[in-house]
Amino acid sequence: MRARNKPWAEDYLQKHPEYVPAEPETFKGSWKAAVFGNDNDLHIEVGSGKGRFITEMAKMHPEVNYIAIELSESIAITALDRMIEAGIPNVRLLTINAEILGDVFERGEVDRVYLNFSDPWPKTRHEKRRLTFKKFLDLYKTVLPEHGEIHFKTDNRGLFEYSLQSFSAYGLLLTYVSLDLHNSDFEGNVMTEYEEKFSSMGQPIYRCEVRY
Amino acid sequence: MRARNKPWAEDYLQKHPEYVPAEPETFKGSWKAAVFGNDNDLHIEVGSGKGRFITEMAKMHPEVNYIAIELSESIAITALDRMIEAGIPNVRLLTINAEILGDVFERGEVDRVYLNFSDPWPKTRHEKRRLTFKKFLDLYKTVLPEHGEIHFKTDNRGLFEYSLQSFSAYGLLLTYVSLDLHNSDFEGNVMTEYEEKFSSMGQPIYRCEVRY
Repeated sequence: MRARNKPWAEDYLQKHPEYVPAEPETFKGSWKAAVFGNDNDLHIEVGSGKGRFITEMAKMHPEVNYIAIELSESIAITALDRMIEAGIPNVRLLTINAEILGDVFERGEVDRVYLNFSDPWPKTRHEKRRLTFKKFLDLYKTVLPEHGEIHFKTDNRGLFEYSLQSFSAYGLLLTYVSLDLHNSDFEGNVMTEYEEKFSSMGQPIYRCEVRY
Repeated sequence: MRARNKPWAEDYLQKHPEYVPAEPETFKGSWKAAVFGNDNDLHIEVGSGKGRFITEMAKMHPEVNYIAIELSESIAITALDRMIEAGIPNVRLLTINAEILGDVFERGEVDRVYLNFSDPWPKTRHEKRRLTFKKFLDLYKTVLPEHGEIHFKTDNRGLFEYSLQSFSAYGLLLTYVSLDLHNSDFEGNVMTEYEEKFSSMGQPIYRCEVRY
């Protein structure tokens, strides 16, 4: 996903430390106590885009702490606006590269990873950029507990096919799979912006849960 | 799949021992040498129905031995007719219950198992009858070599979702998956009767390969 560069985005994000903590590495190992002031589970979304999913999830589940991770500051400002508007205490936003997850969270500090409508990077030579590539499964493992979970959904058939194979090759256990989420009995689905757009065009949404 | 009982089916099958070997247990361990007279790979299809898939595969791949397994004699006679019409030496038909596979084949004697459009048995209480249930994965293992393969396709979403999870729970490696076979780059697909019917109605065909 590309957006026009917005030079003021960085300033705007910095002006809201209540949602966008500065120097996130300093909270490694103490997110729950020092940032959220509780001991609730922590779920992160890698590639959270405009933040609709995570903000809605945070509203629906006040007993869970959420952190949105979105590299693009120009896109993250929309997520920040949503958080400000929601005015809820259990969500934060980090504009970091997923590759430094291990510098920001301790092993076992994150209880679940969400991946929603990740960039499919369809060219074979870009496989390494897909968020379900082995390298990223290694990264999530460094912050999840022993049997930590990834919840993944996408409308992109090629990415889902690839990801099922990547999860299997990594030895992850597939505990849930739907090949048409909106015509399944799954309850509590929160739609992303993309999801609403593509599912209204008749595109099935694929979803799975895997466990380390 | 149910068909009207045809009492003459058993007689008809018995009259064609060139395609339907009597007492198949007696060939355990010697199928290639004693029945096919060669040392080619042996692929079996469990639940082969009217036999279009396996007969077409046998025509396309004369270097492979094929055995169709279909419990219903009333349905198997159509497969036998196809084999007679094709007049090829590399295909056989057994009307046995898949549960006795281990009595008919040695460990490692079967190189690949095909499952095509298996009965979905959608009710949870019938899970044990699905050909991708753990018990059947145990059975295939008893006749396959160490890294033997199952190739599976279906138009039934629920069965495919179930099977992906069953394969994963069993520890099988997912080496190929397509969620829309007829719009994929898979080559050499041979359609079953069912497949032609349901795909012409716009139903996607799901296909995967797994390895022990």
